[in-house]
Amino acid sequence: MPYFDAASSAPLHPVARQALQASLDEGWADPARLYREGRRARLLLDAAREAAAEAVGCRPDELVFTSSGTRAVHSGIAGVLAGRRRAGRHLVVSAVEHSSVLHAAATHEGTGGTVTEVPVDRAGSVAVEAYADALREDTALACLQSANHEVGTEQPVAEVAEACRAAGVPLLVDAAQSLTWGPVPGDWSVVTGSAHKWGGPAGVGLLAVRKGVRFAPQGPADERESGRAAGFENIPAIVAAAAALRAVRAEAAAEAPRLRALTERIRARVPALVPDVEVVGDPVRRLPHLLTFSCLYVDGETVLHELDRAGFSVSSGSSCTSSTLTPSHVLRAMGVLSEGNVRVSLPLGTPEEDVERFLEVLPGVVSDVRRKLGAPEAAARGTESASLVVDSLGKLCPIPVIELAKVIGDVPVGGTVTVLADDEAARLDIPAWCEMRGQEYVGEEPSERGAAYVVRRLS
Amino acid sequence: MPYFDAASSAPLHPVARQALQASLDEGWADPARLYREGRRARLLLDAAREAAAEAVGCRPDELVFTSSGTRAVHSGIAGVLAGRRRAGRHLVVSAVEHSSVLHAAATHEGTGGTVTEVPVDRAGSVAVEAYADALREDTALACLQSANHEVGTEQPVAEVAEACRAAGVPLLVDAAQSLTWGPVPGDWSVVTGSAHKWGGPAGVGLLAVRKGVRFAPQGPADERESGRAAGFENIPAIVAAAAALRAVRAEAAAEAPRLRALTERIRARVPALVPDVEVVGDPVRRLPHLLTFSCLYVDGETVLHELDRAGFSVSSGSSCTSSTLTPSHVLRAMGVLSEGNVRVSLPLGTPEEDVERFLEVLPGVVSDVRRKLGAPEAAARGTESASLVVDSLGKLCPIPVIELAKVIGDVPVGGTVTVLADDEAARLDIPAWCEMRGQEYVGEEPSERGAAYVVRRLS
Repeated sequence: MPYFDAASSAPLHPVARQALQASLDEGWADPARLYREGRRARLLLDAAREAAAEAVGCRPDELVFTSSGTRAVHSGIAGVLAGRRRAGRHLVVSAVEHSSVLHAAATHEGTGGTVTEVPVDRAGSVAVEAYADALREDTALACLQSANHEVGTEQPVAEVAEACRAAGVPLLVDAAQSLTWGPVPGDWSVVTGSAHKWGGPAGVGLLAVRKGVRFAPQGPADERESGRAAGFENIPAIVAAAAALRAVRAEAAAEAPRLRALTERIRARVPALVPDVEVVGDPVRRLPHLLTFSCLYVDGETVLHELDRAGFSVSSGSSCTSSTLTPSHVLRAMGVLSEGNVRVSLPLGTPEEDVERFLEVLPGVVSDVRRKLGAPEAAARGTESASLVVDSLGKLCPIPVIELAKVIGDVPVGGTVTVLADDEAARLDIPAWCEMRGQEYVGEEPSERGAAYVVRRLS
Repeated sequence: MPYFDAASSAPLHPVARQALQASLDEGWADPARLYREGRRARLLLDAAREAAAEAVGCRPDELVFTSSGTRAVHSGIAGVLAGRRRAGRHLVVSAVEHSSVLHAAATHEGTGGTVTEVPVDRAGSVAVEAYADALREDTALACLQSANHEVGTEQPVAEVAEACRAAGVPLLVDAAQSLTWGPVPGDWSVVTGSAHKWGGPAGVGLLAVRKGVRFAPQGPADERESGRAAGFENIPAIVAAAAALRAVRAEAAAEAPRLRALTERIRARVPALVPDVEVVGDPVRRLPHLLTFSCLYVDGETVLHELDRAGFSVSSGSSCTSSTLTPSHVLRAMGVLSEGNVRVSLPLGTPEEDVERFLEVLPGVVSDVRRKLGAPEAAARGTESASLVVDSLGKLCPIPVIELAKVIGDVPVGGTVTVLADDEAARLDIPAWCEMRGQEYVGEEPSERGAAYVVRRLS
């Protein structure tokens, strides 16, 4: 039963399991105590810190363990913003950061801070110049992920770090998706990570803050972990996390090219096997194990459900698969199709056969879903009129796009179709469909309910 | 090698170990995902929540798992204070709460809130009337521990909860020390706990908030755990924590009276075996497994070190064993001796022989330390003068008290000894010595360096 969602959470690495079990006997006591159980726990904690720091590329006294990657991000952002309060209250983030970063930014705004979101291109990458231009005199902190969690695009972290350094602004890098593959390149100031993404246990994040970065921990005081991570240290899990990081790094040299070839195979073959598909994310500067594509005329939830029935666990950024019923902010920022979105992220050791089997199963799954939804197989031909209005009010993604596709052939080249829709996903998916189909997206017009999206037929 | 510091952290319960190992295979995926690995993780999480809620005595949807007991306290206090902001910004705590509560109170004060600390008696207990008197029109929250972590005294939680209910103020009960033994009595509003104190793994706390209590989670938004505990759920540890809580509860009925008899034996015999000892904490309303005593004329660190060499791991609230070099705020609030402080907290299953062996070893350890420090064995007799000054400036606890004890016999009854000291512990220990010795503590006088403590000889 292939699990293809390593980017959400990786299964526990066997080395982590061994380390966890071994340290349950030695690592349960309070490492601040002076008796032998406490001293043993302290030794384990110190050794884990050394190992993790080496893998991150920092000094052990620059690294603390938090209770999760989310907590590392929240504490890291809050700590630098408070520590550099005198510099100002401006925060820079990319538009495609993980929600933990964007939620921390929203909290900062809620208390009177200002935030600049640097946009990304259609591949999901920030431009170094645009990022540098966002830095201001009063910028306290800049945040940029090492690689995107939904589409795998690697960000130009080293170059942005250089620009930040020149501007005197610390750069926090959320490296949750990339620490498996290597340390963060360049002259960063803060790095955060999450152990369960690299095969460690849940309950462990890491926060590395370079010496010299002004940092003022927020929240009630707690003397553990240099005052940067409140709560009793979770030493067995920390030991397992550090052991897992070393283990996956040892495998990364061989696994990175192997998984890159497998994901490249999916990227190349899905558009050939499944009509009306857009593979998204940078084709070259990307994580080795992760790829994402979107399929027109299907809804993500049904595709996920059918793939699960066929034995494949994958993820989606489609609106219908999110609790908020809005499409992924990442796909939205990239301006790519969100409907029928599928993310495949391969755990270490994924066998080639599993990928081949996935490629066998996928076309049937997509075409079944399309058939059930009545999606167009070939362009329908009817009476041509200069303009048409399609009423998709009250209908959820992907119906508005399916109805648009059904009637576009009914207007002459140069004619327009206006789609009335109130599902938020349509705002993203109708322009994305136009881009894929070579039609012109004219724009959005006000409407009594929802919005009216105008499309001009070009071909 | 007997470990007598269960109140700091208990060794992992065998049931917790089994549950942890079993759920490592099933509980690593994201429980928010719809594929089979996610559904399995969700089932484990739901079952653990049911079990924990039953043990706490609340509904499953009232309980969330946090990353530690400290985090549960911080989030619980911040959430109620924010949720009841309209009621006012006044917070009531007892003077002997755990540092996590007092640090959260300090943070509240730092942002303009007001805090009332309810004092305790010499046994460490708040008076219900005094607690009720502290509640005001603008009180947003009241906090009271179920039992004290340093001296074991049980607080009148049910009665205080009733007073809070009458005043319309929610009561948060930090139950970290008592959940092993049973649910919190009375009509509480919020309960917090910490799994590693009851034999669960580190990395799990619990926060139960009764329906109807206004609660506004603070910090960046995160949809997990009802928005009350940010970060990826640590499901294997949560499963182990819930299993351990059920297991210890099943043992509590037999273990509580057995351990109470053992701690009673220590409470009764230590004063007989070791001269100049004060057993502190309520003799009756107390946790079954915990007791604390203080020994005049010794320093806590050396006693702990010597007991560790003899194979016993215990804790201390003496100033010399804390990183801040100030005595425990609990002992200070009780007004009892802090020097030579020893806390014994027995894990479940502690054999009687270990306690007997401790009672054999202790007297020799204390008298060795006293000999090395030159402590008085019997009152010295010298030339009597009406008043004497002892210069203990620059000398650390217990030296100022030892020097006072050495010369008290040199002044006539009615005469005074003035001790000059700059160690913070003297402020607590000199009055405590007077109380123990039946001498009069006259008070403190200003002095160029440190303080001058004046003692009148009464006998």
